[in-house]
Amino acid sequence: MILLRSHIGLALRTYRMQQSRTLRDVAKSARVSLGYLSEVERGQKEASSELLNSICSALDISLGDVLQSVNAQIKVHETPTLTVVDDAA
Amino acid sequence: MILLRSHIGLALRTYRMQQSRTLRDVAKSARVSLGYLSEVERGQKEASSELLNSICSALDISLGDVLQSVNAQIKVHETPTLTVVDDAA
Repeated sequence: MILLRSHIGLALRTYRMQQSRTLRDVAKSARVSLGYLSEVERGQKEASSELLNSICSALDISLGDVLQSVNAQIKVHETPTLTVVDDAA
Repeated sequence: MILLRSHIGLALRTYRMQQSRTLRDVAKSARVSLGYLSEVERGQKEASSELLNSICSALDISLGDVLQSVNAQIKVHETPTLTVVDDAA
C-alpha cells in the first residue's frame, strides 16, 4: 500500500542526505526533536502540516519541492508493471 | 502559511463535488465518520495516510491524483506575485 507519510519521509531524508546534514542539525534548525524527525523520515509518524513546514524551512526547500518528489515516487508505484512472458518456456 | 492538510482537504472536497456526492455517502464508503471527513475536507484535521487512502478509494481516485491537485494549488501560492507600481501617482 502506498502511504503518503512514507513517501514524504523518504523525500525529506533524501534532501537532508543531499545536503550532507545530520538528523541532529536539521531537527535543531526545525525546532523538532531528533526522535520526531527520525520517525517522520522513516514513515513511522505523520508529520503535522505545521511541523512539515518547519522541516522544509530547515532544509531550505519548499513544500512544493517535497510534493514533487513524492509525486515522482508515487508515479513509479502506480504505473502498472509489465510482466515478461517467456514464450519459449 | 501553506498547510498541506488544507490543500489535501480542498482537493478531496473538489473531487467529491465533481462527483455530486454527499459527505455522508463518501464517509460511509470510506468507512470514516462523517465528522472526520468533514474536518479533513476543511483542513481542520490531518488525515492519517491510511484513512487518506480509504477516502481516495471511496472517491475512485489515486493518491497521485490528489497530490497533483495539491501541487497545482501550491504552485499558485508559491509563485511570487507581481506588484503593480503606479508611476503616475
